[in-house]
Amino acid sequence: MSPAGQEAPWKDIARRKQADRASRIPSQWQIPSSALPKDPPQAKDGPQNVLDAPRQFLSKAEISITESDSVTSLLAAIAARTISAKEVAQAFSHRAAIAHQLTNCITEPLFDQAVQRAQELDKYLEDNGKPFGPLHGLPVSVKDTFNIVGVDTSIGLASLCYKPAKANAPLVDLLLSLGCVIIAKTNIPQTLASLDSINNVFGRTMNPINRLTTAGGSSGGEGVLVAMRGSMIGIGTDIGGSIRIPAMCNGIYGFKPSNGRLPYGGQALGGNGVSRTSIQAVAGPIGRSVQDMDALLKEIMPRANFWGEDCFPTSWSSYRQLKAKGSGEAGELVIGILRSDGNCALLPPISKLLDEVSSTLQSRPNIKVVELATPKAWTKSQSVMSKLMGVDGGAVMADLIESTGEPLVPWMSTRFRKGKPQPLSRVAELQAQREILEREMLRIWTQDDAQGRRTQKLDAIICPLAPHPVPPIEGYNAVGMTSSWVLFDYPAGTLPVRSFKETDLESGKPLGGKALSSWDEKNRELWDESKVDRRVYLGTPLSVQVVVPRLQDEKLIEVMGWVDEVVNSKQGREGGKARL
Amino acid sequence: MSPAGQEAPWKDIARRKQADRASRIPSQWQIPSSALPKDPPQAKDGPQNVLDAPRQFLSKAEISITESDSVTSLLAAIAARTISAKEVAQAFSHRAAIAHQLTNCITEPLFDQAVQRAQELDKYLEDNGKPFGPLHGLPVSVKDTFNIVGVDTSIGLASLCYKPAKANAPLVDLLLSLGCVIIAKTNIPQTLASLDSINNVFGRTMNPINRLTTAGGSSGGEGVLVAMRGSMIGIGTDIGGSIRIPAMCNGIYGFKPSNGRLPYGGQALGGNGVSRTSIQAVAGPIGRSVQDMDALLKEIMPRANFWGEDCFPTSWSSYRQLKAKGSGEAGELVIGILRSDGNCALLPPISKLLDEVSSTLQSRPNIKVVELATPKAWTKSQSVMSKLMGVDGGAVMADLIESTGEPLVPWMSTRFRKGKPQPLSRVAELQAQREILEREMLRIWTQDDAQGRRTQKLDAIICPLAPHPVPPIEGYNAVGMTSSWVLFDYPAGTLPVRSFKETDLESGKPLGGKALSSWDEKNRELWDESKVDRRVYLGTPLSVQVVVPRLQDEKLIEVMGWVDEVVNSKQGREGGKARL
Repeated sequence: MSPAGQEAPWKDIARRKQADRASRIPSQWQIPSSALPKDPPQAKDGPQNVLDAPRQFLSKAEISITESDSVTSLLAAIAARTISAKEVAQAFSHRAAIAHQLTNCITEPLFDQAVQRAQELDKYLEDNGKPFGPLHGLPVSVKDTFNIVGVDTSIGLASLCYKPAKANAPLVDLLLSLGCVIIAKTNIPQTLASLDSINNVFGRTMNPINRLTTAGGSSGGEGVLVAMRGSMIGIGTDIGGSIRIPAMCNGIYGFKPSNGRLPYGGQALGGNGVSRTSIQAVAGPIGRSVQDMDALLKEIMPRANFWGEDCFPTSWSSYRQLKAKGSGEAGELVIGILRSDGNCALLPPISKLLDEVSSTLQSRPNIKVVELATPKAWTKSQSVMSKLMGVDGGAVMADLIESTGEPLVPWMSTRFRKGKPQPLSRVAELQAQREILEREMLRIWTQDDAQGRRTQKLDAIICPLAPHPVPPIEGYNAVGMTSSWVLFDYPAGTLPVRSFKETDLESGKPLGGKALSSWDEKNRELWDESKVDRRVYLGTPLSVQVVVPRLQDEKLIEVMGWVDEVVNSKQGREGGKARL
Repeated sequence: MSPAGQEAPWKDIARRKQADRASRIPSQWQIPSSALPKDPPQAKDGPQNVLDAPRQFLSKAEISITESDSVTSLLAAIAARTISAKEVAQAFSHRAAIAHQLTNCITEPLFDQAVQRAQELDKYLEDNGKPFGPLHGLPVSVKDTFNIVGVDTSIGLASLCYKPAKANAPLVDLLLSLGCVIIAKTNIPQTLASLDSINNVFGRTMNPINRLTTAGGSSGGEGVLVAMRGSMIGIGTDIGGSIRIPAMCNGIYGFKPSNGRLPYGGQALGGNGVSRTSIQAVAGPIGRSVQDMDALLKEIMPRANFWGEDCFPTSWSSYRQLKAKGSGEAGELVIGILRSDGNCALLPPISKLLDEVSSTLQSRPNIKVVELATPKAWTKSQSVMSKLMGVDGGAVMADLIESTGEPLVPWMSTRFRKGKPQPLSRVAELQAQREILEREMLRIWTQDDAQGRRTQKLDAIICPLAPHPVPPIEGYNAVGMTSSWVLFDYPAGTLPVRSFKETDLESGKPLGGKALSSWDEKNRELWDESKVDRRVYLGTPLSVQVVVPRLQDEKLIEVMGWVDEVVNSKQGREGGKARL
């Protein structure tokens, strides 16, 4: 702590770090201050949507490169030398630089390195007549947590600044070995454990669709940069919802895999030893379509096990059979709808969204929709999950924050307290509780015949990501609906459905009855007109979560593709092209 | 503890338990005491091999049923109604009862239930014209640790006797749902943590090949019962080598899968919460051929995830491609030979065995053999593994033993001490060390090109199971060569090669140089003629261990089949039929 009158050490570090960051944006890419949104955001200024604002500063070629391609078609164009990797890296870097100025989404701009790497790839293609790897020239971004040689992994903590990483994270090495070009690292919240991506070193990342609402977290910068087309696709990490929530807040797609499908090692704070004793976070993509995520995953998944010490050998095709056959009696896809998790009641627009999705899916002959009762195991899982996530007492993080005198950011200030690590016996007890919940939860997927023979009866679950729409800044409430699936290690993804409309404002009376929990109480405030102007939700994305059994990651991408086609084609929405 | 003059409570419990066990062997299956081997075994009585002794007490039909079939052909015969499930259950129960009288391998005979269940299966087949499941009528045995409704899971501890299980272990339910018939539970060591299967309740299980040598553990009863054809195939569990070591000691095959392939839950001492914080044991088969294990696994693996809360969805065919293609430049199978783990030097017969296997494999055009240097990570892994296995301090086990005044069995008496559970931070530190070792160890499988692109260069490793042959009772030494593969979660199997011969006695001078460790010192005593009569090894099985990368379990069965064919066909050994 700093003596009275003296500035706390973190402030100077943050100033230097921000200046260094600014210096890595070429002056010709700086946009005039008149083009910047107003801060702090105020209701009277409206949403200040900047999603398409970069276009005005880009050349036609740059717009074309950053907007017209899917991952697959972009890769094909580079491989065919219709366009060079360098042109692509420059266009995305330029767009990323603008996106960053509008939203503060980047922690480490890597534009120079990206263009240099792209040039090397171009040369390789010229010399060898074939691409360096299957993702030759793909511009990607990664969450700040991933180590890249020579670049800080500060995760927004002053005490970790100016300590460049000495080795790449295995996933970074894998991406590079496939031919990717990494153009930036992206912003995260202090402690990585909140849902607003704000920290003392880099500041707050803003939502490009609506500056009054949260950009989500902890992979918030990633969600924003990908939504703004500053990167083709990004890598986030998720333990409580940190991939899925920013995808939801920014109207794009997120994919939280099962543990062991993507290398997780080599991130901030060294080994994930504590994770192995309690709950393991996972890495996964945030993208603009199911197809884009699939294009990345199909190259990563089958190679992950020779890069990540924590990965399995898996092909990325074994679940393609789902295309032909679901678990229904006539081979139809059986999708269960889960509503409340028993801890929070859904706000009316979320209930309405689920009704819409359910009835749209039901209209298809090859899909059977079933309403599921809330399994007790799901309700109970939130508490076991939050206890397991907290077993280490947060001491390492607290010490890092304190060492430079940093204050806690707003959301954490009421929620973060340095606690004692739990004894091993308590952790074992929680793991045993988890085991029982896992076994109970299995029964949602299966049915037994009279002789005890078991078959799968359900292919996927659709449920909310949260009991509320994209909330105002600092307003994100319960994470139970996202975190539970990590406890169960079920793959889960975010699928944007439509925007919040005027008619959603009236969609429902106030919630009656007693609150289910303190979370529920807080949640009701987000629909209570005495506490919030509901019009803040207008235009924000409404999304659903798709969930499948453990390690059926390919089934998840298939079901997401299928649901995306059905839901989004009916709504006439852009994107979400047919896959199945 | 019992007051002076009073008997400790465990003694009466053990007497009752043994009497109950004896009463479940029908009198007509009891063999005359003149047929029993001499106890305690003494060098002057020789090995007292009883492997084939049951034949004299069996009918021709029973011999035919228990000896002439593989799992696949037996199942086919039952399905075709050439033979009834009841006849099969009776024949195996009879042979198991005799095997038990000769070796003390069974804890819970379940002959009545088995025959009744078989009758129900026969009726099902008659009524429905098709088998109940793909393993209809297969007689199997399981390690005592698995819960079966109404049966004790005492694991040889007096304090756990007469507390019948209230629910089946998920793996038991799965076996039953496939049509298996469980004929017995089998013996284990006190604490499950030693390599001689002896406990105060059930006594010691003896090696049927050589009564002077150990039967191995902890799945020792399982190894013996399967070797004696008292069961078609058995289920053990393995954390330090508990499947592979009894398979080695009894000259049969053992398969330790990766974690998550077979349901592990529902075993002794409730949840495996501690395992999840430290090291997870796994369940796997012990069988008389690679083909038999494959026949069982191919039905279990694809269904495991809907029975075990700890399992993945996996097919059992994705690695069949290996048949066509290994990792060699011309598609040949590349097998690496690992010798010492750096902690113990191999005794001469083990070195010689590896030389033989290596040169036999090398003679095949489709196999490339490479000598591997001992990776540092392998050497270091033994210590991290043993620390992780001990993090809970053994307090629960110690309390159970003390509560009825049980003494420690000989092997444990110098090795087991009640310790304090480690703090969570220490466990996390060990997990972080493990993570680093895992990442280092990955490099043994792969090679990078100049541009950092990685490919697999090695398909499998062959190494010893131990630095010594099957040792005398209480003589099992280092487990590092088996336990390390659990730390890395690599699938590993036991493959018997040949028996120890007269010429092996002279195979090598005494080991020179300084001992590598205290383990090594102890190990050298097993070849030191002043400490041991080497002739005790004559006729005992010599085996190798086959290891593949994590979760490549199908590759393991393939490589084991391949190596088995090459090694065992050349030697003209029975069994080990060609698979590839």
